[in-house]
Amino acid sequence: MAQHNLQDTVALLARTPATLNSLLRDLPESWTHRNEGPDTWSAYEVVGHLISGERSDWMPRVKMILEFGDAKAFEPFDRWGYQREIQGKSLGQLLDEFARVRSDNLTELRDLNLRTEDLKRRGQHPALGPVTLSELLATWPIHDLTHVHQISRLMAHQYRESVGPWSQYLGVLQCAGHSSSA
Amino acid sequence: MAQHNLQDTVALLARTPATLNSLLRDLPESWTHRNEGPDTWSAYEVVGHLISGERSDWMPRVKMILEFGDAKAFEPFDRWGYQREIQGKSLGQLLDEFARVRSDNLTELRDLNLRTEDLKRRGQHPALGPVTLSELLATWPIHDLTHVHQISRLMAHQYRESVGPWSQYLGVLQCAGHSSSA
Repeated sequence: MAQHNLQDTVALLARTPATLNSLLRDLPESWTHRNEGPDTWSAYEVVGHLISGERSDWMPRVKMILEFGDAKAFEPFDRWGYQREIQGKSLGQLLDEFARVRSDNLTELRDLNLRTEDLKRRGQHPALGPVTLSELLATWPIHDLTHVHQISRLMAHQYRESVGPWSQYLGVLQCAGHSSSA
Repeated sequence: MAQHNLQDTVALLARTPATLNSLLRDLPESWTHRNEGPDTWSAYEVVGHLISGERSDWMPRVKMILEFGDAKAFEPFDRWGYQREIQGKSLGQLLDEFARVRSDNLTELRDLNLRTEDLKRRGQHPALGPVTLSELLATWPIHDLTHVHQISRLMAHQYRESVGPWSQYLGVLQCAGHSSSA
């Protein structure tokens, strides 16, 4: 298992918009706009959720730790913030927007020139309690991977019947949802 | 849930090489060459496995159904075939090779001009028994998604400790392996 490494974190964060663009752009809506059942998301909604996190979650929390440390708890993340993001937008527009806001955030992150000692600074999560800047930054790309994992699962779900007896060999079809947002 | 639709199947199959290319090319080896523990694969090995399937699994089985129906069982898939594919190759070379063999196979598939009645033709799987051409073709992109799902999980595993208390919120970290090859 790897130690957190900021260069590795940024390398992965920088690739997620292109990964989702390659997978989803111009794909038939039977893959991108269907979900796994009531109270679950489609791939289209997941991209909205990722944009919402870029705006109100990751960099705002980085800046809160640098400014206030653990004296002030983060704003709770708004799981429904994606609904504002997707209103009236096509999937192509959301993919463009995700690429733009992610790129802006990575520029802002690089401009902070974080040093090793900064990564040890502590913040206060409203539910999890004390966390470090290093943990927050490591969580960011793993949150991306949680949603790549979710998108592969929800798309595979659309063919659950179509694959016939092969379903037992396909790991992605054995995967139940694992967390409230993934 | 969607009925199997050959155009939708091909649309997804055509995107997987670019998706993995966007995610993995030039990414640090701490993401691409580590696995989840003994007897598990790295992302690099998964790409080798996908190439191996292109060569010896999907289209050869399609052609067997068209030629022999269920009179002759498929060759069992060689789970270790990937070892020949990766020998001495860089990840970049494997990504190029996967794109090439997938593209060749999709050309060959389109040239078959399969009609609705062809999709009902039956074949014989060595372990699963009777299957249809439609089920075989539907399984192909879901096998891709099983491995996208696996890659997101095995990469996330590398930061299992680094994310600290956030691990409980990250669905991908709750996912156990689901099948022998995924």
